Amino acid sequence: MTPIPPNESAGPLDGIRVIDLTHMLSGPYCTWLLGALGADVIKVERPSSGDFTRIVEPMLEDESLYFMSVNRNKRSLTLNLKDPRGKELLLKLAKGADVLVENNRAGVMVRLGLGKEDLAKVNPRLVYASISGFGQSGPYQHRAAFDVVVQALSGMMSVTGEPGGGPCRVGTSIGDIGASLFATIGILSALQKRHVTGHGDAVDVSMLDCQLALLENAVARTLNTDELPRALGSRHPLIAPFQAFATADRPLAVCVDTNEQWERLCRAMGLEHLLHDPRFTTGSRRNANHGELEPILKAGFSSRTREEWLQLFDEFDVPSSPINSVAEALEDPQVRHREMVVEVPPGSGRRFVDVPIRMPGSIRPSASPAPRLGEHNRGILAELGLGDSEIDQLEREQVI
Amino acid sequence: MTPIPPNESAGPLDGIRVIDLTHMLSGPYCTWLLGALGADVIKVERPSSGDFTRIVEPMLEDESLYFMSVNRNKRSLTLNLKDPRGKELLLKLAKGADVLVENNRAGVMVRLGLGKEDLAKVNPRLVYASISGFGQSGPYQHRAAFDVVVQALSGMMSVTGEPGGGPCRVGTSIGDIGASLFATIGILSALQKRHVTGHGDAVDVSMLDCQLALLENAVARTLNTDELPRALGSRHPLIAPFQAFATADRPLAVCVDTNEQWERLCRAMGLEHLLHDPRFTTGSRRNANHGELEPILKAGFSSRTREEWLQLFDEFDVPSSPINSVAEALEDPQVRHREMVVEVPPGSGRRFVDVPIRMPGSIRPSASPAPRLGEHNRGILAELGLGDSEIDQLEREQVI
Repeated sequence: MTPIPPNESAGPLDGIRVIDLTHMLSGPYCTWLLGALGADVIKVERPSSGDFTRIVEPMLEDESLYFMSVNRNKRSLTLNLKDPRGKELLLKLAKGADVLVENNRAGVMVRLGLGKEDLAKVNPRLVYASISGFGQSGPYQHRAAFDVVVQALSGMMSVTGEPGGGPCRVGTSIGDIGASLFATIGILSALQKRHVTGHGDAVDVSMLDCQLALLENAVARTLNTDELPRALGSRHPLIAPFQAFATADRPLAVCVDTNEQWERLCRAMGLEHLLHDPRFTTGSRRNANHGELEPILKAGFSSRTREEWLQLFDEFDVPSSPINSVAEALEDPQVRHREMVVEVPPGSGRRFVDVPIRMPGSIRPSASPAPRLGEHNRGILAELGLGDSEIDQLEREQVI
Repeated sequence: MTPIPPNESAGPLDGIRVIDLTHMLSGPYCTWLLGALGADVIKVERPSSGDFTRIVEPMLEDESLYFMSVNRNKRSLTLNLKDPRGKELLLKLAKGADVLVENNRAGVMVRLGLGKEDLAKVNPRLVYASISGFGQSGPYQHRAAFDVVVQALSGMMSVTGEPGGGPCRVGTSIGDIGASLFATIGILSALQKRHVTGHGDAVDVSMLDCQLALLENAVARTLNTDELPRALGSRHPLIAPFQAFATADRPLAVCVDTNEQWERLCRAMGLEHLLHDPRFTTGSRRNANHGELEPILKAGFSSRTREEWLQLFDEFDVPSSPINSVAEALEDPQVRHREMVVEVPPGSGRRFVDVPIRMPGSIRPSASPAPRLGEHNRGILAELGLGDSEIDQLEREQVI
């Protein structure tokens, strides 16, 4: 297989080849990151339909925005893995790859003859990562999971929302994306280990497990104290004040963690008398007496507009913020400075979020838009040594 | 420096040494992951007080639960970095390290003479990762940020909560932990690149940037459609039904993504007539007509208890789940099977969540509890070649 020519703006994962057998979100977000960081990602899809999310609305022209956003920096190869020729091509591809990522239900890959052990026979250096709803073992291993299911099952929804209110989902698909991030960490750890052992390991990441890891402090409190973590609106369970407040116009968020910040907040708000109030002199007292503190601050905040407060807090160095819509956030001067929005491809008017890791070579992901289904069949198969007539035949017979 | 002896149950990051100059949550969660995956993490803290979270309540005996949970698998070394001798010791430590992680405000490390360039002089192979509220550049670079501030500023709070309700924070500190995960990915990517270039890069991760990356699909919709993403309670913005429903007793979450799942849901609920209803025959129609679909399903769900529905959906293979508290989640048979709860140290009764990555060597992090302040001073300084009397003097003079 021809190696990828070195790139002037080489990303940190330049030279790493990833076979991407994922669909929906948990897998594609992981491989989006790997691609943005420089890996050569080959997305393998079912012929004719491809990744299910290619038809998720809204569409831009005839392409799904959902698909487009998380499938940048990838090449698309169609393969029918149930056809022996399709399977053979995948094994051939695996010989020259460093990582395989899949997010099918547990057992599917083994039934296809494409499990970790099958792949290890052709390439023992291949890191083999599986992302699933519940993991590769256990009573639920064969169940499908989707974001809201693991947000509900893990307790994530139980700590999100208004106190005593209805069930609220975290407003982004943290059930999927949490697993994407931990899987990426597992894959990169396995690559590091491969430098030592020469061997590619299996990585097993479950969406449900990842939600619990994100709930780290709530889990610790549940297991070691009498407290039962619950939904608290905008409030932090251990720190006060650390929440949203209404002002004379729009709400803001404010956060006081240290005694120094508490002093600055009181001075900024003209509430210096609170500094000597024994209910509020330490962090734990402020949190324990939060029920008495909140109404005093609420009354204070009503006297000025948000803009006035934010300006004051900026002067007094009290961490605070408007509660922005996503649109407002994207106009924020800091977000603009950090170039977190990229146009892909340049000049298309199609704009997406960038990968939030700034390091040499990491600002280059913008170049390559999500591929059309099978867009790179011919090039990738030619790299595997197939001739034009062979490729034509595979196409006619719907192997690709 | 004596190399760490190889471990029988070696983690994937075995042999990697990390200098951890972080405090609070965004940094410690990152280095907790690195340690759990096998790295040797040396947590450097201010003499006498240490990480601020050592005093965050609740306490177990005299140790902070908050601190304990995310500082497992680390050794503690106290160093006064403002003292030339403390700084010298840090530089000496850096000579034998692979990674340095810090989460101070931008500029602090440079002022201490411990910025990336200073460290590169003693160890050009050192990966230097900075986690901050807003990043190492831009108009807000010197501001402090805390979880609720970036959740508010990024728009994360605007898409979480009840429609038209009050501002809700994601119930876990996703503002911090999101940055921890992306920083870990940046660090591991830089380690991979170091195998190619021999050089350790700087990694710059901002909590605010990371929130936007987690909001990926909401960002894509904001920038490319007329839609303004907003809080939708438990509902998904693009897929229906994909939300919580009340039943005859407790609520559940259910998710229908494909037409096959829709068919199975309708059969399970005895609502086969909906299968031919043109408002609901495709995913996009179900979502567009969600306002008409929801009341029909609500009425349907009221006829049985949650347990009855979940059993039916299990038979019909419809993704569904109870809406658990964290305590209920931890009792779930799948969570127990996956051994997501570990006792640290064994026999102590202190239980925490494990790292959710299953790979060879990844189940071993349980052994080492969070360190006492300066607990490993003597051993680490001896590794650096200091004798007992030197160490005694540093202690007397509060350099350590």
